[in-house]
Amino acid sequence: MTDRVKEILGWYQSDNPGTLTNLARVLGHGALGGTGKLVILPVDQGVEHGPARSFGPNPPAYDPRYHFELAVEAGCSAYAAPLGFLEAGARDFAGRIPLILKLNNHDVLLEERDPDQAITGSVRDALRLGCVAVGFTIYPGSAHRLRMYEQIRGIAEEAKQHGLAVVIWSYPRGSGLSKEGETAVDVTAYAAHIAAQLGAHVIKVKLPSAHVEQAAARKVYEQEAIPVGTLAERVRHVVQSSFNGRRIVIFSGGAANRDEAVFEEVRAIRDGGGFGSIIGRNSFQRRKPEALTFLRTVMGIYAGTQK
Amino acid sequence: MTDRVKEILGWYQSDNPGTLTNLARVLGHGALGGTGKLVILPVDQGVEHGPARSFGPNPPAYDPRYHFELAVEAGCSAYAAPLGFLEAGARDFAGRIPLILKLNNHDVLLEERDPDQAITGSVRDALRLGCVAVGFTIYPGSAHRLRMYEQIRGIAEEAKQHGLAVVIWSYPRGSGLSKEGETAVDVTAYAAHIAAQLGAHVIKVKLPSAHVEQAAARKVYEQEAIPVGTLAERVRHVVQSSFNGRRIVIFSGGAANRDEAVFEEVRAIRDGGGFGSIIGRNSFQRRKPEALTFLRTVMGIYAGTQK
Amino acid sequence: MTDRVKEILGWYQSDNPGTLTNLARVLGHGALGGTGKLVILPVDQGVEHGPARSFGPNPPAYDPRYHFELAVEAGCSAYAAPLGFLEAGARDFAGRIPLILKLNNHDVLLEERDPDQAITGSVRDALRLGCVAVGFTIYPGSAHRLRMYEQIRGIAEEAKQHGLAVVIWSYPRGSGLSKEGETAVDVTAYAAHIAAQLGAHVIKVKLPSAHVEQAAARKVYEQEAIPVGTLAERVRHVVQSSFNGRRIVIFSGGAANRDEAVFEEVRAIRDGGGFGSIIGRNSFQRRKPEALTFLRTVMGIYAGTQK
Amino acid sequence: MTDRVKEILGWYQSDNPGTLTNLARVLGHGALGGTGKLVILPVDQGVEHGPARSFGPNPPAYDPRYHFELAVEAGCSAYAAPLGFLEAGARDFAGRIPLILKLNNHDVLLEERDPDQAITGSVRDALRLGCVAVGFTIYPGSAHRLRMYEQIRGIAEEAKQHGLAVVIWSYPRGSGLSKEGETAVDVTAYAAHIAAQLGAHVIKVKLPSAHVEQAAARKVYEQEAIPVGTLAERVRHVVQSSFNGRRIVIFSGGAANRDEAVFEEVRAIRDGGGFGSIIGRNSFQRRKPEALTFLRTVMGIYAGTQK
Amino acid sequence: MTDRVKEILGWYQSDNPGTLTNLARVLGHGALGGTGKLVILPVDQGVEHGPARSFGPNPPAYDPRYHFELAVEAGCSAYAAPLGFLEAGARDFAGRIPLILKLNNHDVLLEERDPDQAITGSVRDALRLGCVAVGFTIYPGSAHRLRMYEQIRGIAEEAKQHGLAVVIWSYPRGSGLSKEGETAVDVTAYAAHIAAQLGAHVIKVKLPSAHVEQAAARKVYEQEAIPVGTLAERVRHVVQSSFNGRRIVIFSGGAANRDEAVFEEVRAIRDGGGFGSIIGRNSFQRRKPEALTFLRTVMGIYAGTQK
Repeated sequence: MTDRVKEILGWYQSDNPGTLTNLARVLGHGALGGTGKLVILPVDQGVEHGPARSFGPNPPAYDPRYHFELAVEAGCSAYAAPLGFLEAGARDFAGRIPLILKLNNHDVLLEERDPDQAITGSVRDALRLGCVAVGFTIYPGSAHRLRMYEQIRGIAEEAKQHGLAVVIWSYPRGSGLSKEGETAVDVTAYAAHIAAQLGAHVIKVKLPSAHVEQAAARKVYEQEAIPVGTLAERVRHVVQSSFNGRRIVIFSGGAANRDEAVFEEVRAIRDGGGFGSIIGRNSFQRRKPEALTFLRTVMGIYAGTQK
Repeated sequence: MTDRVKEILGWYQSDNPGTLTNLARVLGHGALGGTGKLVILPVDQGVEHGPARSFGPNPPAYDPRYHFELAVEAGCSAYAAPLGFLEAGARDFAGRIPLILKLNNHDVLLEERDPDQAITGSVRDALRLGCVAVGFTIYPGSAHRLRMYEQIRGIAEEAKQHGLAVVIWSYPRGSGLSKEGETAVDVTAYAAHIAAQLGAHVIKVKLPSAHVEQAAARKVYEQEAIPVGTLAERVRHVVQSSFNGRRIVIFSGGAANRDEAVFEEVRAIRDGGGFGSIIGRNSFQRRKPEALTFLRTVMGIYAGTQK
Repeated sequence: MTDRVKEILGWYQSDNPGTLTNLARVLGHGALGGTGKLVILPVDQGVEHGPARSFGPNPPAYDPRYHFELAVEAGCSAYAAPLGFLEAGARDFAGRIPLILKLNNHDVLLEERDPDQAITGSVRDALRLGCVAVGFTIYPGSAHRLRMYEQIRGIAEEAKQHGLAVVIWSYPRGSGLSKEGETAVDVTAYAAHIAAQLGAHVIKVKLPSAHVEQAAARKVYEQEAIPVGTLAERVRHVVQSSFNGRRIVIFSGGAANRDEAVFEEVRAIRDGGGFGSIIGRNSFQRRKPEALTFLRTVMGIYAGTQK
Repeated sequence: MTDRVKEILGWYQSDNPGTLTNLARVLGHGALGGTGKLVILPVDQGVEHGPARSFGPNPPAYDPRYHFELAVEAGCSAYAAPLGFLEAGARDFAGRIPLILKLNNHDVLLEERDPDQAITGSVRDALRLGCVAVGFTIYPGSAHRLRMYEQIRGIAEEAKQHGLAVVIWSYPRGSGLSKEGETAVDVTAYAAHIAAQLGAHVIKVKLPSAHVEQAAARKVYEQEAIPVGTLAERVRHVVQSSFNGRRIVIFSGGAANRDEAVFEEVRAIRDGGGFGSIIGRNSFQRRKPEALTFLRTVMGIYAGTQK
Repeated sequence: MTDRVKEILGWYQSDNPGTLTNLARVLGHGALGGTGKLVILPVDQGVEHGPARSFGPNPPAYDPRYHFELAVEAGCSAYAAPLGFLEAGARDFAGRIPLILKLNNHDVLLEERDPDQAITGSVRDALRLGCVAVGFTIYPGSAHRLRMYEQIRGIAEEAKQHGLAVVIWSYPRGSGLSKEGETAVDVTAYAAHIAAQLGAHVIKVKLPSAHVEQAAARKVYEQEAIPVGTLAERVRHVVQSSFNGRRIVIFSGGAANRDEAVFEEVRAIRDGGGFGSIIGRNSFQRRKPEALTFLRTVMGIYAGTQK
């Protein structure tokens, strides 16, 4: 175990050795093991967008085993998926990659102004499948947010008692926010802070834009001259908002489609003190050799072996 | 046990031997035993449409014992029904046919834009009645879908702990969809995928039409040239969407009324790699001798002994 | 125990000996003991309509002990009432008449388009009061029906585990139905079938009219020429719809006020194969001697000792 | 123990000796001990109307100990209050006066057409504070009434198991009733009957007016010539509606402000066969010496030592 | 232990020694230890207003350890924060300052007319983190208030059983009140009384204005000539409304921004018999040396060592 991993584990003062062990498993696994950086492969798009939109561009990805293989071969830190996908491969790939059971999900067969998610798995499911952590999405800004906070509170308490780590996807959405506001820098920092206060070990947010959504916040950003002009600055602000950097914060891609644009974002995350990326569609929607090249480049940027 | 059954059981990596035993019972039973194909007799129409509409055309079917007999004599793989119907025959027919307790139901005495179902049985009921599996309907597209997903999640966890298999009827309905969209190929594939992610061992959907409902999906179907022109192709796509064929997917009839049209659909299911049929009204709404002839023809098509 | 009672008990294949014992107690008690016919005295009108409307016409009926006495003296098969009424006499009358605790109730201090009931007693209450069964009302057609079905499902499971029988009052009401439809023959048969599927041992419905409410049902009634012209035919159809007569179905009166009209209804129930009557207001809203004469005439019709 | 108390205890046939013991404690305590009559001091006005409106007219009443003292010194049968008030004096006054923990409360910081109450205490709280009974308000006529009935059902079952008595405040309110209807004689009798059926040992209602609210009830009052012209007649009717007088029914004051008017009401309660009064504001909103004189006069009327 | 602390503990007659021990820990800690006065540092603004608005003016405050240090160095009586903030420092600062886990929270990413809070921690969390008390916010005046009262009721019962103290933040808000009414003196006194009746050991309200919101209350304030002209008089009235001063009532600042204005408010709290202050933003939104000076001045005023 590297000093950096020891340092990070030191931030989680209230957790039992079981949870620290599982956090250490993620931080010690794969190509970035020991660096304190993470790249996680998440595959819940089948539920979130439908199977054809998710796997049509790369049909082997219809097979649940494909994603385990991809995560293992690419040297990812962990693989996160809903119940069905993990059940379908957890025995074949037992012990080969840290697993995160995504415990709630949303589909797009009914679009709602204030989105909510259904709980689709349990802490017991995570334990019987050999996972290191549970994942959960909250939608700050939605009329259902309070219920979601209460759900993850209960789940997190149970998970921590059983030695699992907790990953919160904090995605601002809903009637409290404008469309642009969903990725505004103030809102993203706020969403990350809420996840930290809810007891998350790892926080996942979207890359923030330079837009500031809330008038009361804008006044402070201006008054205190909080630097949010560059993406790296905004990443730094979000990390600072997460207990001054004492929580692991990782980012999913923005709208970038071209690889070079993604790499540029990854460099900004690295430069801003972010802890890594969670990369779904850009990984499994291309053929595997290209995906491996792509993911290795991303990891190289975090590891400092690539520019 | 045939190699094909062993192969299918191998897909369910996370299940305990109890659940695998019950899946093996269904796959090993009746005229299609060992082929990896299934024909299930479901009789919940009494609740779903009322007794006269269901049993008026063949009055012996008012008697709950009739359906056990029909399923046994026809060599069906299993018989699925709500609590009352199973309670009324489970002792007389104990051990003669695998039983599936349908755990939720819907009636038409009040029509609602966003339909829901009532839970009408429990895992404990299924165990005390000697069932091999529990059945549950979800309505993707309905405003109540999240609650339904959460219900089956809890039921499935309990069922699997107790060695039962889980069958999900995934029927898109509700305000998120047009009428035509309820059987659209994209929606059907999506519904099957959701059921798989919710942990179903067996997924039941309606035969899909060639209509594509969602604009975002249509773009992908066109771009990736996913073949959905023939019914067999659409069946293949739905099976692929269910963990690349590593989940048992069975189909209920379309609007076909003439027997030959139904047989044509069955051939398409077979040719598309579907695992079988669930056939209610076409079975019990005709006199028993005719029903037996009809069901044996269907099974013959799946077994390859009929064209 | 008569052969007829043995035959009836044989229909309840899934029940434990405790529940069969309690069913046998009802079928063996009173003037109709052993005949397979039942006359039950229900007194929940105090809650349902208010005390003055219920007991004003016969003031001794304000006293809870009155109804125990009436049921005992008339030779009723059982007495059914809410918690308070049973608590107030269960010790004085212990062992003298089978008791049914009515577990939910409705009042008319607020009229609602979609009625619901409050749960006002528990299976444990029924056990501590020495009851043989629990009673529960459902309102098929109401927006609250799914919740009601789920409530009785849980209650029935608990009751059966503890050796009690389950009586369901199935009263179609609510926004899914026209006023006339509440007693339509198709709706009544449907309501009885739902109760049977929910696991009722005894089903209580209102006497059906010749009206057919649902268009889809009307088509079948006409096509299959289901005879529903006379009241006896309609009773027969409702009994058939309740598992082909393998569930006990009893009827409450229609709008009949004159005694002879009630007796005419009772003859129709008898001729149609119904299992008996549940008679409240016509029993306790007249002076006791007249009520005894009235009830004995009804029982005589069922027993065959009166025309 | 007097014969009258023994007689009253005899009405509660289904209760365990623990509950009877606690009922006997109330009936045996204070100036009216043994007479079968009760005067209870209730102090929940602080929550119901706010502290200044409740205690401003007599500032010593801000102190929770004041009300214990007042009830003890006046010789009340019991003292009823919410959690906080009982917690604040239960040790100092342990064993000096029977206590009733009021388990739900309502405030007027938000007025609603269909009022509801919050549960603010538990049966366990009542036990740890040494109470003899729990108190609970229902609002027949409110859209929330079914939930309230279900709440008290569960609470009453738990209370009775633990040897506590149950007092129900039955206050008709809400969108099902006109303002005048809230104290109509038919509605009051109906509300008392509902409380009795819910299993109350002691029922508390407001003094009824001569108004009859419901058309269907008015017909019966007229037809049966039920006498409700005088207050004593109306009290008699409400007591009759409560299991023919076999439940303890007590009354709170009407709009009377002058003492002599209150005494006139108390005489009517006595003459109508009511069991006593529950008197809050008229007791603690005047200086203690005057309150004691007032309460002793009330008790004297019930005891027959005052006219 | 001072006599004053013993006296205060004497008010909590119904609590077990564990809870009294924890109350004594708060009353005995820090610069005001033994005086019966309290100054508590609360830091939930990160969730309530977002991280930049909260910590931007003094960036070291992004770090959860900062607030523990500040509370310890300033000699505060206790430190109150949500789950995440306490988890992040509870081991480093174990035993150095009494901790209060704030169990519910609200954010401003969606503004609602009737605000509610999410439960974000549990009594078990408080116990495992070594806290002396749990904190909970209620919103009297909100449509969600009844649910909030029921939540804190359950939490308080559990907390007291486990020897924790209970702090209620009683903040009138919602559709029942005008904006001005949220801090009206009648409403503030009412809110404090409700918290006391809910079983709070410590009550936290905002400093009341001279406005009287409710017409029915205004009549009493005028009639009884309740003095509410000065801030000290209003504090005295709120304290009196909290069981005549037998509950600990502390105040948060009004709109005061200048230090001297805050000190003036503190003098009014002291003169009115208030028990202290809870001071968040005025503490941690300035640099630490200035915050320490500020807090020591406040404590000096309470201790009588400053004017």
